[in-house]
Formats: sequence, structure tokens, C-alpha cells
Amino acid sequence: MSRYEQGIEKFREIKGEGAEKSLERLKSLSPDLTRYIMEFAFNDIYSRPGLDLRSREIATIAALTALGNAAQQIKVHTICALNVGVTKEEITEVILQMALYAGFPAAINAMQAVKEAFEEYDKQNPGSIKQAGGIDIHKKKAISA
Amino acid sequence: MSRYEQGIEKFREIKGEGAEKSLERLKSLSPDLTRYIMEFAFNDIYSRPGLDLRSREIATIAALTALGNAAQQIKVHTICALNVGVTKEEITEVILQMALYAGFPAAINAMQAVKEAFEEYDKQNPGSIKQAGGIDIHKKKAISA
Amino acid sequence: MSRYEQGIEKFREIKGEGAEKSLERLKSLSPDLTRYIMEFAFNDIYSRPGLDLRSREIATIAALTALGNAAQQIKVHTICALNVGVTKEEITEVILQMALYAGFPAAINAMQAVKEAFEEYDKQNPGSIKQAGGIDIHKKKAISA
Amino acid sequence: MSRYEQGIEKFREIKGEGAEKSLERLKSLSPDLTRYIMEFAFNDIYSRPGLDLRSREIATIAALTALGNAAQQIKVHTICALNVGVTKEEITEVILQMALYAGFPAAINAMQAVKEAFEEYDKQNPGSIKQAGGIDIHKKKAISA
Amino acid sequence: MSRYEQGIEKFREIKGEGAEKSLERLKSLSPDLTRYIMEFAFNDIYSRPGLDLRSREIATIAALTALGNAAQQIKVHTICALNVGVTKEEITEVILQMALYAGFPAAINAMQAVKEAFEEYDKQNPGSIKQAGGIDIHKKKAISA
Amino acid sequence: MSRYEQGIEKFREIKGEGAEKSLERLKSLSPDLTRYIMEFAFNDIYSRPGLDLRSREIATIAALTALGNAAQQIKVHTICALNVGVTKEEITEVILQMALYAGFPAAINAMQAVKEAFEEYDKQNPGSIKQAGGIDIHKKKAISA
Repeated sequence: MSRYEQGIEKFREIKGEGAEKSLERLKSLSPDLTRYIMEFAFNDIYSRPGLDLRSREIATIAALTALGNAAQQIKVHTICALNVGVTKEEITEVILQMALYAGFPAAINAMQAVKEAFEEYDKQNPGSIKQAGGIDIHKKKAISA
Repeated sequence: MSRYEQGIEKFREIKGEGAEKSLERLKSLSPDLTRYIMEFAFNDIYSRPGLDLRSREIATIAALTALGNAAQQIKVHTICALNVGVTKEEITEVILQMALYAGFPAAINAMQAVKEAFEEYDKQNPGSIKQAGGIDIHKKKAISA
Repeated sequence: MSRYEQGIEKFREIKGEGAEKSLERLKSLSPDLTRYIMEFAFNDIYSRPGLDLRSREIATIAALTALGNAAQQIKVHTICALNVGVTKEEITEVILQMALYAGFPAAINAMQAVKEAFEEYDKQNPGSIKQAGGIDIHKKKAISA
Repeated sequence: MSRYEQGIEKFREIKGEGAEKSLERLKSLSPDLTRYIMEFAFNDIYSRPGLDLRSREIATIAALTALGNAAQQIKVHTICALNVGVTKEEITEVILQMALYAGFPAAINAMQAVKEAFEEYDKQNPGSIKQAGGIDIHKKKAISA
Repeated sequence: MSRYEQGIEKFREIKGEGAEKSLERLKSLSPDLTRYIMEFAFNDIYSRPGLDLRSREIATIAALTALGNAAQQIKVHTICALNVGVTKEEITEVILQMALYAGFPAAINAMQAVKEAFEEYDKQNPGSIKQAGGIDIHKKKAISA
Repeated sequence: MSRYEQGIEKFREIKGEGAEKSLERLKSLSPDLTRYIMEFAFNDIYSRPGLDLRSREIATIAALTALGNAAQQIKVHTICALNVGVTKEEITEVILQMALYAGFPAAINAMQAVKEAFEEYDKQNPGSIKQAGGIDIHKKKAISA
């Protein structure tokens, strides 16, 4: 399997059901950029053993919030984070914490993107709506990740 | 206990032995700024229950790397991360991953700061030098955090 | 009165009539983030005696322009600035000056946000439409601020 | 001819047919900002002899991508770049390369803006649609620039 | 008098005694860049009537803090701010306030630069050392500015 | 030849004599980061046929200036740019132009880094000192690049 194919496989593992749609949108924008993202980001980096996927998604959401110009990417990685077992509460905590390092406007804008991603996720995963206050079935996946 | 004192206590828990020195340096710069950092950052945010300290430090190091102008703060939070049980390997993985979101220059500069913090940490914790390849005694603390 | 309540009071003083609506929108996004903004931003910082509110709003608009990713916040603080006595001309001057420090794209984008805020302000304050060329009744408030 | 008029002339040379429309939109936003952009950007800088216009537009698109908050300006300068003889392929290469220095989100967002500008350009220049794979008639202009 | 000469005159008015030294250092770096800074920044922008110099320096220090990579420029404009009548306390307040918009690391780094500039200023203006707690003789200048 | 080895070869072609030293310094910092830079940056991107190396280095210097926190990388790519035939004058023009998009502080700081790189380059290439005003022997290389 090529680096590209392995990257796509990793991306599917992280992004879940919406992976194909994200991939198609990215490819329609630029096949080359898509290839590098799958090869370098998802095959080379996200597949490295030294850090679990939960922590990787937490790091990514923190960084995207700090960058301040990546609302679309925050949405994508909020879904990814939920899929690998980060809870809604934990994602919200990361955004709140970013107020300390990137200021309130960056935190407000990221919170808006996260909220939209939560709504999209709930629509596609009706059974998980009660996650915030109840049992997080996704968390189990994370432990083995 | 005041919010300020509780913040300092949390900061000591996270920063470990070097906390007093950091605190003194910050206070000599600005007592007011120090107060807000202890009150808002360490009492209000870092003490919130929704996210463990390991994940908080991972998020912070990711954000500081993405900001690109916070070498001194990366050093401080590398020590904090090690103290709450993030391993050197995990910190290094976070920096590598940031190349995807903030580019190679930001990753290179952060890696330089992290490396200097590792050396400082090893000097002050002679017993932990073998951490990367051996048993991480700090990790236990993190599980209960 | 709690820090939160005092922060809201300060926010109302600065934001004027639109304060409730801003507050509701922010709370629907995140009650915790709203609380920290009211407590830390408006109670702790904006209530400090060492700098008048006119200067504080000028500083904020300058910073938001330089950050380059805070159009919504520029709109909010343009209204705040007008409310505490900064004139439209002065706000426009701040944006123009930012071309020197953050470049033309940041200045153009901020000017767009400011213009939209001016239009919204004029709609809600019909009597103040002639401000730019006439007598600025808000300025009096600023002197005593 | 004043610096302002000379700047406008340079801007027309670079921006081509769409120059008037861009100029009107900018002037409706702020006549002063427009004046400084024409005087300082287009008369003082873009008219300097030490660097050809092709290279200047490549540098500008690279910088706007790295800044990460200038989608509208990327669109304008994509048209400018095409007009002075940079090919679509070259513009795309600049964006891809920016993934190295500003990260993938900045590259994705810039690619989106560039794609929209290409579509707008093709609509206004029906004869140039085959540029990517065929002969680039604009390149000739660039050699004499 | 040329735009360049008028810009230098304005710069001298704002920067005070240290103007020549700043100018020489800048010219040794790039005569062209120096020319544009004097012409565009100090002649075109800082000489505009719509905003007093005190407010201009407050806006600049706020923006430089938010940019996060301009320690040397913060030092220069701290001296400028003191010269046009902004007090040390007011400058410190601007930096504190920036924690809200650009985060704590940006505020800490700016505070360090400001502190160094204060020390330099006190060395060159022995009579003004007591400014923070006493009578601010510079403020009078600002009123007429 | 592996992607890593091909990347190193490309890096040597671009960086010239100083390549080994840069490579060693980078490897001592992080072998993994070095590998990704050689594989992704120099093998995947800089080796793509769609944009000549002269334009690639111009784009990189523009982006690094706009990022504002990459002085060390500006120095490296100034040497790279000179090696692939960009003249000192052209590099200086790129920095001047960046004042338009990233503001004067970013341009001043980049100019400082470029000046230091020029001095280092002249020390190692005594015959090229007269480049700015004379014949640029490097330019020939660029044409065939």
C-alpha cells in the first residue's frame, strides 16, 4: 500500500463516516495538496506511535484556535476528536484554555466553529446527543487507540 | 484562600521545584500581570475539572508552537508538561505535528526551545535522564491527575 | 456584587444599548467563556483606573486590527469606542495607522468591519449621524471618563 | 502626474480590466486608504526597477498565504499575477509551497481563494481557459516587464 | 521641505533626543526602508490631524504587543509614548489589557520590552524617574500636542 | 535513492557549500524533523517542475518575512536565494515590498536578518562581493535551473 493510500486509511480511521466527503472536497480543490496532506499529515505524522490520537487531536484543536484563521479546519478536527474519543467537554475546555494564550477573540471564534461541528455531529450520530452529561461510548475506543 | 493564592498553589503543583523562581521573575516584571496569570490562568482555567493536566499541557505546548513567538513560554510549559507526566517523546511528537499546522520554521524554533528545557530539566532531575527510553515515573502522577 | 455582575455592569457602561444582545449571543455560545470575559476583561481590566476608557478602546481596536482575524470583535469595539466618546474620525485614523504595523490587507479588512459598525450605530442612533462633521456629543462623556 | 495618479496607472497596468472596479470598491471603503495604497504600494514599491512584476506578484501571493487572513487580497493578486504573466500552474505551486512555511490550513484556504479567482478570470478571459495545459500568451508580456 | 524631511522632523518631535541614533541605525540597515518609514509613517500618517499623538502611540504599542514579534519596535515606541506625554502607568495598562486580545505570552514579552525601555529612558532623563508616583511633567506637553 | 536522500541532494543544490553544516545542526535538534524537511520540503515540493528555484526562494523569503518570527530561516533562505541566482538587490526588494503586506516592523526585522546573511555570504564568497553593482555570475545558474 502506498503512503497516500495508508494516509487515507488513517484519515478514515480518525474522521469516521465523513472522511469520503472531506476527501472529495479537498481533491476538488487540489489533488496535489490532498496527496501531501494524506501522505505527510496522516501517514507520516498521525500514524507515529509516540502520541495517542486523543492527544494529537487535542494538540491540533489548540493550535488551530491559536492560529485564529482556521474555522473550517477546527470543524473538521472537532469531528475527528469526537471520533477518537475526546469528549465534547474536553474540546470545550481546550478552547477555553486558549483564551490564555491566544486571547478572547480567538477563543470566541473557535467556540463558534466547535459549536457548529457539535451540531453537525449530533445530527449524524443521533445516539450520542447525551454525551456531555452521560456515558461517553467513544472514550472506550480512545483507550485502545 | 484567595484566588491568587489558589492559583499559586496550582502553579506550584504543575511547575514543581522551579515554581518559586518563575514566580519571582514574573513578579519583578509586573505584579499585576503575575496576579492575573495566577488568578485567571492557574486558578480559573487550569483547576477546572473537565480536562486532565496532561492534556492541558499538550494543548498549551501546541498553541505556543503555533503562535511562533513564545520560546520562553515553551520552555516553562515543557517543564510543566514533564512534571504532570507528559513524556519527552510525547512533547517531541506535539512539536513534530505542529509542522502540519504552523509550518516548519515554527516547529524548528519550538524544538530548539524544548531541547533547552529538556537539558535544564535533566540537570535538575538527574534521576530522570533515562526517561525517554525507560520507565517514566512521572506518568503515574498523571493517571491520578 | 460578584466579579461577574460588576463585569456586566462595566460592559453595559461601555457597550451601551446593545450590551444585552451581545451578552445573550455570547452566553448562547459558552456561559463559561462569557463569565471569564465579564470577570477578567470587564471587571478586572477595563475597570482599572490607570487608563481612561477612550484610550482603552483605541488600544483594543488597534490590537484587533493587527491580529487580523477578529472582524466581529472590531465591530463590537467600534460601537464601544463610539459610546465612550471616541469619534468616527479617530477610529478611522487608528485603522489607517495600522497599515504601518500590520500591512494594508489588515487595514482594509478592519476598515470594512468599522464601516459596517458605523452603519449599524447610525441606524440605532439617528441623532448622531452628523457626528463626523459636526459636534460630537459623546466627546463630553469621554472627558469625564 | 501626481504620485497618486502614477500609482493608479501602475495598478491599471498590473490589474488589467478589473482595475476600475477594484479602485471604486476601495474608494467607497476609504478614500485615504486608497490613496496610500496607490501612492505607497503601487507608485513607490511596485514601480521600483529592482524586481520584475512577475516576481513581485509571486512574493505577494506567498506573503498573503502566510498571513492567513487575506482571502480577498489573494483573489485580487491572483488576477494581477495572471495579468503580468505568472501562469496558473506557478500560482498553484506557490500555494503548495506555503504548506511548508505556514502549514496546511493556510495553504488550503489560499487554494480556495485562488481557485475562485481562476474561475472569475476565465469568465472574463474566455480565450485563456486552456492556459494551464497550452501556450501561455501572458508569459510574453512578463519577459518585457 | 520634502516628504522625507518633514517625516524626519515629525519623528524628531515624537522620538526626542534619541531620534538621530534611531535614524542612523535604520539608515545603516536600509536607506530605502528608512525613507518610506519617514515619508509614509511619520509624514503621511503620524502628521494627520484626526488623532492626537498620545492616542497614536497608545494604538501603536497595543498593535506591536498583539503582533508579538516586535520587541525592538515596542522599545522605540515606549520612548516615543513617554515623549508625547503617555505616562508609564498608562503604557503598562495597555500591555496588561493586551492579555485579553493577544494572550499572556504576548503581554509578558511586551512587558519585558517596556521595562527595558523605561530603564533606558530613566537613565537618559534622570529628573523623570519619579514619574510613576509623582507629577508627570510630560503630560503637559501632551495636552498641547 | 530514497526520498530522504533525494531531498538532501536537492537541499545541497540549493544551499550550496553550507548545506552540510545546516543539515548537521538540524539533525542535532531532531533527526525526525530533519527527515520530514528533506523528504517533504526538498524532495516533494522544491523538486516539483512547475516553478523555478529562483521564484521558489523569492516566495519563501516573502512568506518568512510575513510570518515575522523566522529570522534564522530568513538567513538560510537568503543564502539559498543567492545560490540559485536571486540577486542581493532582488532579495532587498522583496523585503521592502513586504512592508505593504506585513507592516514595517516585519520588514525591518527581516532586513536585519538578510543583512547578516549577506555579510556571511560575502565572507564565504569573496569574489561575489561586488555583486550588487556588477555582474551577477550566479544569475547564469538560475537560467538553467
